[in-house]
Amino acid sequence: MKIICEKEKLLKGINSVINGVASKTTMPVLEGILIQTNDKEVKLTTYDLEIGIEYIIECDVEEQGNTVVNAIMFSEIIRKLPDTDITITVNDNNLLVIECEGSLYKLATMNPDEFPELPKINVDNSIEIEQNLLKNMIRKTIFAVSNEENRPIFTGCLFEVKDNKLNVVAVDGYRLAIKSNLLNSKSNDFSVVIPGKTLNEINKIILDSFDSIKIGVSKNQALFEMENCKIVTRLLDGEFLNYRNAVPQNWETRIRVNKNTIQNCFERIILISASSIEKEKKYPVKISIEIGKVTISCTNQTGDAKEEIYVTTEGKNLEAGFNPRYFLDALKVIDDEEVYIDFGTNISPCIIRPIEGDEYTYMILPIRMKD
Amino acid sequence: MKIICEKEKLLKGINSVINGVASKTTMPVLEGILIQTNDKEVKLTTYDLEIGIEYIIECDVEEQGNTVVNAIMFSEIIRKLPDTDITITVNDNNLLVIECEGSLYKLATMNPDEFPELPKINVDNSIEIEQNLLKNMIRKTIFAVSNEENRPIFTGCLFEVKDNKLNVVAVDGYRLAIKSNLLNSKSNDFSVVIPGKTLNEINKIILDSFDSIKIGVSKNQALFEMENCKIVTRLLDGEFLNYRNAVPQNWETRIRVNKNTIQNCFERIILISASSIEKEKKYPVKISIEIGKVTISCTNQTGDAKEEIYVTTEGKNLEAGFNPRYFLDALKVIDDEEVYIDFGTNISPCIIRPIEGDEYTYMILPIRMKD
Repeated sequence: MKIICEKEKLLKGINSVINGVASKTTMPVLEGILIQTNDKEVKLTTYDLEIGIEYIIECDVEEQGNTVVNAIMFSEIIRKLPDTDITITVNDNNLLVIECEGSLYKLATMNPDEFPELPKINVDNSIEIEQNLLKNMIRKTIFAVSNEENRPIFTGCLFEVKDNKLNVVAVDGYRLAIKSNLLNSKSNDFSVVIPGKTLNEINKIILDSFDSIKIGVSKNQALFEMENCKIVTRLLDGEFLNYRNAVPQNWETRIRVNKNTIQNCFERIILISASSIEKEKKYPVKISIEIGKVTISCTNQTGDAKEEIYVTTEGKNLEAGFNPRYFLDALKVIDDEEVYIDFGTNISPCIIRPIEGDEYTYMILPIRMKD
Repeated sequence: MKIICEKEKLLKGINSVINGVASKTTMPVLEGILIQTNDKEVKLTTYDLEIGIEYIIECDVEEQGNTVVNAIMFSEIIRKLPDTDITITVNDNNLLVIECEGSLYKLATMNPDEFPELPKINVDNSIEIEQNLLKNMIRKTIFAVSNEENRPIFTGCLFEVKDNKLNVVAVDGYRLAIKSNLLNSKSNDFSVVIPGKTLNEINKIILDSFDSIKIGVSKNQALFEMENCKIVTRLLDGEFLNYRNAVPQNWETRIRVNKNTIQNCFERIILISASSIEKEKKYPVKISIEIGKVTISCTNQTGDAKEEIYVTTEGKNLEAGFNPRYFLDALKVIDDEEVYIDFGTNISPCIIRPIEGDEYTYMILPIRMKD
């Protein structure tokens, strides 16, 4: 094998595939990048048996060939080389030889035949969406994915296509995040659950650009296709929450509040509420709503905290307990200046919604207060 | 106690003293900030029994008083409050009450009488220096301070005033860093060894500005004085290295090299040399000098690396082994475009010097190569 490639192009490829490298594995070959030439292209592949990433780079291929090289070492060396053409060969001793100006590096290689093949996917349904939109949809839901492996279906996000709309939904038993976007072109309805881990990786690779990404799904796999780059992932198996029925449509108490103002209040009060030496998982704060005013308060052995905000209120007075972390997670990803926060009784969930439209919905379950 | 203070001023004070807070201590009061009013000022003090920091803030003092409050909690709350006036009182229950717009926080306090007094220093000698100069002198030496507690004197930097020049020197047995600066005003000669930990803290507090800082020393203590802020520290006790005799004045081989070029070479080659599975503390690379060329190379089970640079050479050819980490540490803090690197034999130290003047000197001991 002998290729000559611009450093920048090569590094962009490496950066895209590096997150697919297995971190803890009994198969050393999965810690590597598979490098394969194909006519005037070189393909980089990584695969941790759940997520596989391929990236194609156009470059001078002077001699065809395949090899596998340790991903971390290869990427670190390429990253630090000067910004110019890099020549990569495999020599007679099966060492990968990297040459660039006065630098010469030789790395051990692994047998490319041992690198497992990525699953072939027969795409049943697919959609296309702008990369910045998908990035935004992931950002606005991924934090609500469950970390608990005992209900694996909730460690992923539901991708539901229905009536030409993509709904991305995450739920962990305490809160629910829904982000919706209209699709530009017609598509069949489908719904799949994509592992949170995959979405985190995709989020690192996709750009904040209007370039499109194609999402294709089969029964067990999904395929994300961009220019030069493909990502395959397994899907999560099981019954997702029927989320439409879970979100109450009516409210008894509504506030309309500046997003930053209430976010700042929660950021301060969590300093006290989360400092509890008792270190329960729940750090409740009390939210009290009277006409024109919201009070958020908590008391524990660290101290007392009280935040008062003057807001527009509608409906009944209310007192209920909530985990401020869940409010913060949602408020942090909302870009609107103002939001509605709707409440039912003190044992029903609270909903954060936009002032207009229904592009996102955050539902947070209350915590029963002791007194 | 009752004070009213601008958030920004208060936070600047907190940020200055917070690094003096004890992290692991059996005296809870040392995890606090001592707050003392004095007429129209409030003084913040922290002290970990080695470093004490005082910061004075002008503010409205409506009622005099003293208290101690947990430093982390106090600083986090103040940091997150809006940018406006903050009222701080101690109430009848001995709680510290922080009020700012709609926010009300109450924190437990500790007894200010239990807070140990900072040592009083009778300054024998002192110098004044611009803060940015001191910052630079610390940055250019601190990395060479020893981490080994078995020779405590080398865990600090020598501050030597001699012939109206300040020399700051650090040495860890493998390398030596010297940075010198002329002083603007006459001063008595003196020399003290200041703990590396103190210098790291001072470096965080002093500004990259032309404002001056006064360094006063007594037998066992040093005092750093800036506008609003004082830092006291114990000195290290013992005999420092006679560094002047340690640095060879002659060379057999000299190269003149672009600083960035050789730094980049070391940054790449250390990827291979430091990857050794044998994980000895020494990761030697071989430096070979021929007329007009330096070659840096290493070989281990990860691979081979070779870097060639065309440079101006003088004197004999040479081959010697060195730890590339020590070169990198020194090269990273040098701001010059070019440097001299001088060598003796393959068992004598190598010296990095500026092309003109003698404002810094880095000495690195060689490693005996196996072959």
